[in-house]
Amino acid sequence: MRLRVVAFGGGHGLAASLRALRHCAPDLDLEITAVVTVGDDGGSSGRLRADRGALPPGDLRQALAALAADRPGTRRSAELFQHRFDSGGAGRDPLAGHAVGNLVLCGLMELLGDPVAALDHAAGMLGAVGRVLPMSCQPVGIEARVRGADPRRPGAVLTVRGQHAVAVTDGRVESVRLTPEGPTACPEAVAAVRNADWLIFGPGSWYTSVIPHLLVPDLAAAIVASPARRLVTLNLANEAETLDLSLADHLAALGWYLPELKVDAVVADGKAVGDPEPVHRAAESLGARLVLAPVAVPDGGPQHDPAALGAALVPLLGADR
Amino acid sequence: MRLRVVAFGGGHGLAASLRALRHCAPDLDLEITAVVTVGDDGGSSGRLRADRGALPPGDLRQALAALAADRPGTRRSAELFQHRFDSGGAGRDPLAGHAVGNLVLCGLMELLGDPVAALDHAAGMLGAVGRVLPMSCQPVGIEARVRGADPRRPGAVLTVRGQHAVAVTDGRVESVRLTPEGPTACPEAVAAVRNADWLIFGPGSWYTSVIPHLLVPDLAAAIVASPARRLVTLNLANEAETLDLSLADHLAALGWYLPELKVDAVVADGKAVGDPEPVHRAAESLGARLVLAPVAVPDGGPQHDPAALGAALVPLLGADR
Repeated sequence: MRLRVVAFGGGHGLAASLRALRHCAPDLDLEITAVVTVGDDGGSSGRLRADRGALPPGDLRQALAALAADRPGTRRSAELFQHRFDSGGAGRDPLAGHAVGNLVLCGLMELLGDPVAALDHAAGMLGAVGRVLPMSCQPVGIEARVRGADPRRPGAVLTVRGQHAVAVTDGRVESVRLTPEGPTACPEAVAAVRNADWLIFGPGSWYTSVIPHLLVPDLAAAIVASPARRLVTLNLANEAETLDLSLADHLAALGWYLPELKVDAVVADGKAVGDPEPVHRAAESLGARLVLAPVAVPDGGPQHDPAALGAALVPLLGADR
Repeated sequence: MRLRVVAFGGGHGLAASLRALRHCAPDLDLEITAVVTVGDDGGSSGRLRADRGALPPGDLRQALAALAADRPGTRRSAELFQHRFDSGGAGRDPLAGHAVGNLVLCGLMELLGDPVAALDHAAGMLGAVGRVLPMSCQPVGIEARVRGADPRRPGAVLTVRGQHAVAVTDGRVESVRLTPEGPTACPEAVAAVRNADWLIFGPGSWYTSVIPHLLVPDLAAAIVASPARRLVTLNLANEAETLDLSLADHLAALGWYLPELKVDAVVADGKAVGDPEPVHRAAESLGARLVLAPVAVPDGGPQHDPAALGAALVPLLGADR
């Protein structure tokens, strides 16, 4: 039986989730849809957004590359999409830092006037084994209330504006919101959620890649109303934006931003969890059971191993209700 | 029987030649190779060449787009390759004027370190019905001796440097050369010429897109030594660089730059030729017969109609020796 899976996130975390889902074959027949944040304002994406009003393409590109077909030609096209222009030879280097795939996506969106059509075409160019959709067809801003953002005033809570600034803040993120508040959801993403068998959240930058999906009203409503089961994959290590956040706090944050959210399963790596009791309780308060499995890369780095995470997902996604 | 055809040129003229060759199917089974000039120093190509040392991609891109498979996905990818970024909204617009395909080719050449591998991959992305090769894997310079290049000194002969400057000169081009002289030919282009059944020159900018091929020593030697038959398609109207050049002069120029060149057939539009006698004699002096056919677009513009030119080529290319 074909299972329709929607994976939420952005950047490297979403790519890891998608690679793991690909590893569920041939045990499971999955129809994969990635729903991607569109808040990036840094680097190549930030420049395309500022200069051309583009939907920031970087996270979309990463998801597409993770889904590229495993054939020599499409693997090479995925490499091309990921290839970043270096600073060139002649001093003047307006292309430096841009990933080729960002320019392709920007061109396609301008040519076709429709981000979803552009992403579907790019998916075809890569023979992608799934669909990639933006959470919203308009770029969004992210801002956070951060305690200690200014090291000279460690107790003060300041507003930090922009996804990139939030992601690298030295302070403790206390809350996050989108600007403008309540952006319109991408209709195709809402439809995918409605028709899904599973919704998967994380891994990824919690405040800037995972929680933003819960702040898009129509998407959040669809997530709550969907007949799908829900799974959360927890991170292996903390990033700057979540430095003081325990894994139990990560789960609590989901419930804070979307109180009606019910979760069926939480997947975490035993080593990353340490004492499982607080995580177990936090999972339970979302209605979920905690599944511990060795899902990190063998060298001990804080990256998910696609095969190991896929192996952990197979019995969960394939289980009867 | 499969016929191996090599078409020489650059820009719109070569694209017209390639589109006409595609129209030879299903009457003829052609294996098409385009060999493309690499002298462009204007526009998007010129900027990529100056900023990043790239082989100027614009003419290569046009040839690829002309060979893209006639399926909805590959047609759209060809549109994407041809799509030019406009000046954007925010004032700063480092991408403005670049064709997306130029950036893709530039990225592929940097990623793979080999223009031929890059072009073969791009051809695969477009499902191209033929191969596109550069005449040389290094960019070349074009310079011309031009009488009256400076309108204040109409009789003086000055050196005009750069393909773009030569192509738009107000004066009369007296001679053209490459810098550095005698560039290395692309080995795959030489091999294609050696194994060809037909070599096709023109239409196109005569001094900047057609004759440059004859100035690459190994390519010129292969053209002379090849067992292939040779065909010249004449232009329909003069451009700035050939304003004082009759069609007979166009043919004579080929013999001037490559005296050993023998030609089997010259195709021209009767209306563009006017009195056929001088063109007939110029063709004969290359060993060729002149074939007059209505090959222009029906609206009377100076563009070749792919179907009409294809129909004129079928009996010539398909004829027994």
